[in-house]
Amino acid sequence: MNKKRVGIIGAGPSGLAQLRAFEAAKNEGHDGPEVVCFEKQSNWGEMWNYSWRTGVGQYGEPIHGSMYKYLWSNGPKECLEFSDYSFDEHFKKPISSYPPRPVLFDYIQGRIKKNNVRDYIRFDTTVRWVSFDEETQKFTVVLDNLKIDKTYSEEFDYLVVASGHFSTPNMPYFKGIEHFPGQVMHAHDFRGADQFKDLNLLIVGSSYSAEDIGVQCYKHGAKSVTLSYRSSPIGVAWPEGIKEVPLLTHFENDTAFFKDGTSEKYDAVVLCTGYQHKFPFLPDEMRLKTKNNLYPDHLYKGIFFNELPRLIYLGMQDQYYTFNMFDAQAWVSRDCIMGKYELPSKEERRLDINKWLAENEAHTSNEAHVDFQTAYIKELLSLSNYPNFNVEKVAEMFKEWLKDKEENILTYRDKSFKSVVTGTQAEIHHTEWMDELNDTKERYLYQEESEESLADKVKVSAI
Amino acid sequence: MNKKRVGIIGAGPSGLAQLRAFEAAKNEGHDGPEVVCFEKQSNWGEMWNYSWRTGVGQYGEPIHGSMYKYLWSNGPKECLEFSDYSFDEHFKKPISSYPPRPVLFDYIQGRIKKNNVRDYIRFDTTVRWVSFDEETQKFTVVLDNLKIDKTYSEEFDYLVVASGHFSTPNMPYFKGIEHFPGQVMHAHDFRGADQFKDLNLLIVGSSYSAEDIGVQCYKHGAKSVTLSYRSSPIGVAWPEGIKEVPLLTHFENDTAFFKDGTSEKYDAVVLCTGYQHKFPFLPDEMRLKTKNNLYPDHLYKGIFFNELPRLIYLGMQDQYYTFNMFDAQAWVSRDCIMGKYELPSKEERRLDINKWLAENEAHTSNEAHVDFQTAYIKELLSLSNYPNFNVEKVAEMFKEWLKDKEENILTYRDKSFKSVVTGTQAEIHHTEWMDELNDTKERYLYQEESEESLADKVKVSAI
Repeated sequence: MNKKRVGIIGAGPSGLAQLRAFEAAKNEGHDGPEVVCFEKQSNWGEMWNYSWRTGVGQYGEPIHGSMYKYLWSNGPKECLEFSDYSFDEHFKKPISSYPPRPVLFDYIQGRIKKNNVRDYIRFDTTVRWVSFDEETQKFTVVLDNLKIDKTYSEEFDYLVVASGHFSTPNMPYFKGIEHFPGQVMHAHDFRGADQFKDLNLLIVGSSYSAEDIGVQCYKHGAKSVTLSYRSSPIGVAWPEGIKEVPLLTHFENDTAFFKDGTSEKYDAVVLCTGYQHKFPFLPDEMRLKTKNNLYPDHLYKGIFFNELPRLIYLGMQDQYYTFNMFDAQAWVSRDCIMGKYELPSKEERRLDINKWLAENEAHTSNEAHVDFQTAYIKELLSLSNYPNFNVEKVAEMFKEWLKDKEENILTYRDKSFKSVVTGTQAEIHHTEWMDELNDTKERYLYQEESEESLADKVKVSAI
Repeated sequence: MNKKRVGIIGAGPSGLAQLRAFEAAKNEGHDGPEVVCFEKQSNWGEMWNYSWRTGVGQYGEPIHGSMYKYLWSNGPKECLEFSDYSFDEHFKKPISSYPPRPVLFDYIQGRIKKNNVRDYIRFDTTVRWVSFDEETQKFTVVLDNLKIDKTYSEEFDYLVVASGHFSTPNMPYFKGIEHFPGQVMHAHDFRGADQFKDLNLLIVGSSYSAEDIGVQCYKHGAKSVTLSYRSSPIGVAWPEGIKEVPLLTHFENDTAFFKDGTSEKYDAVVLCTGYQHKFPFLPDEMRLKTKNNLYPDHLYKGIFFNELPRLIYLGMQDQYYTFNMFDAQAWVSRDCIMGKYELPSKEERRLDINKWLAENEAHTSNEAHVDFQTAYIKELLSLSNYPNFNVEKVAEMFKEWLKDKEENILTYRDKSFKSVVTGTQAEIHHTEWMDELNDTKERYLYQEESEESLADKVKVSAI
């Protein structure tokens, strides 16, 4: 019998977790399926693979990444640590709890570089169209090799969609915005705070992007930052120079008007108005149609598309848990594909989905949302052999983090947490976050190393 | 026998010309095929349908338009006039030779609003994938109704690709650009000069976009404009405040370095580095693969894809002639589909293509290029009953325009040309172009009207 074939769309944290899961099974001596991963970009990492480009890439495909310069983790790294590859194992020493993007990207890559995972990935390859044959129970995937401009088709028994959901902007219209004279961009196209130096910046939105871009621009020298919220403000203790106002109603030239009747002139606008779950390569009956939330409908255990469970979605939830959630999902997905985990009937799956949907509906506070996703992670961990970790402890850290942010949005990244994987307490970083304008890995790791080598030199001279 | 089905991709000037051509045949009493046009946007006009959006649209599809505020025709309108619908017929009075975008868009719409062309267009509908069945000689087109998020397939006997080739940016990498602190955008995302007021702007490129965006930004208050060319400068007499420099080699922070060893600091960069012919919805063997030039290979008479002539491309040439060329092409395409114009054998078509390719290769001057495209238009006109017009006279106007621009890039738009369709001499516009900062249709048509009504009033009081 031929080996089953598994197609994975996207080599970001979720797709790489899926590849890692199959490698883990192989290392345990199991004979796995044939796995191929398709990645539109020329390197792995998806969102974490920063690009200066906006709009479209080298080959004219829409840019995937929404990543910007000066992005530092906005949650403790101890809440996203791989339970099978610790930060200690990667960096060989304790680091701080809130590293910048290049450091996190380095960490993601460290785990997969240990294996031959890269061999399974076809880079510069985008998926054009997918169809499913009920009779053969196979997916036909039309692929486009962007580098050589060549299309071709392949068949798969399982399809894993790991293409993320923070790539396609949701961009509402505000009356008069077409006449606003300054720069108008969506957070997706934001590449760094520098261009907003000395400007009065209006940010529309009240979620993570709005909060983080607002604070970054404040830190890097914007003259003022105004955040406009739809239903409720972020509500933390803002420093002077950042404020929240109710919903933007319209523009008149460079003046923005808000729901409370106030108005103000701005130099630039960043729309942090969220993203769409968008799967243009899938027929609509296979598309996950959902708003961003902690438990999208139609996915059994948050991953198996109920109408067609050979179609698996990874990482489609709104996220407290990230890398470790993708792992926990990928291990369950793998076990199902390899026949170690059997799915119940469609009706039973439906009942289970409904149970989680009802539970999700019942809560509104951030703390309750943390508990909800914690329960989901525990459920996933019970279904596979992904190394267990102290999820309750992680939930506590999330709640502490929520408090820290509320207390002081400018200093919460200076706090230190303790790893549930290794027990290591994070270092206090050499520079306070508000004073640190350089986000390179070299700078991040520099001072400590130089102090160490200084200590070595002192020892040598003392001999 | 069932009616033949024709699918048209795109409702811009080319797609609309195709619809108009079929309407014209119908009006002449001919029984035409069933025609369906698919348009990604919610209105027709493609490039001429200005949108404030950049990146992706309401439904997450890449934005088609590269149109910006304050765009005025950069060639005399007498060189693009429809020979079956004059400017006089539309505006009922003479207007100037270089109208702004809203006025040209109004003109394009005037002709098609006379018919029921709109009924044939499915808006908010994008083409996902096309395949061709050799046996049935039919195209299967997978469509996506963006408004209701629904995909479906339809079959067509002919497919007309009229999706343009100024939508997908070509964006080269320059060393250090990822660290340039200011705004970096491609011309595709340029929406107006206002945001560059008082800034030192670097424009990379030496074609129409570079020239026009540079001059617009100068006109609307940029502190300085530098144009960097690859092989040869635009070379017109630039005013103080605009200059041309050789190719950009790299950036160091906000300083750009050029091939002649000079360097300068900039606040923002606009890459006017051209566009890709991009057809992601077609299998690569059906894709027109070409650089932007006056006679792309693989197209018989510039339109019939030689490997599969039921696949028709409109408007894929680099353009002196625009609207009238699309018309001339669409009429030939129509006659072929309706069996009035028979294609020769593949080999004969190949020989004809080769002849044109060789001819195109032989010339390098702008004047010779005008003559080349003029010969091509004459060839097209000889193949259908599209109303003939004095192409030689239009060629002369193009050459005069080239000279005008070289003489004074700031005043060439104040010149007046004579229509070859109606013989009407264009009005001198009420305001010199350099002083006219408002590009609305109302403003463009305003003063004259008010003077007329003033004259009327004077007459009345005199009675």
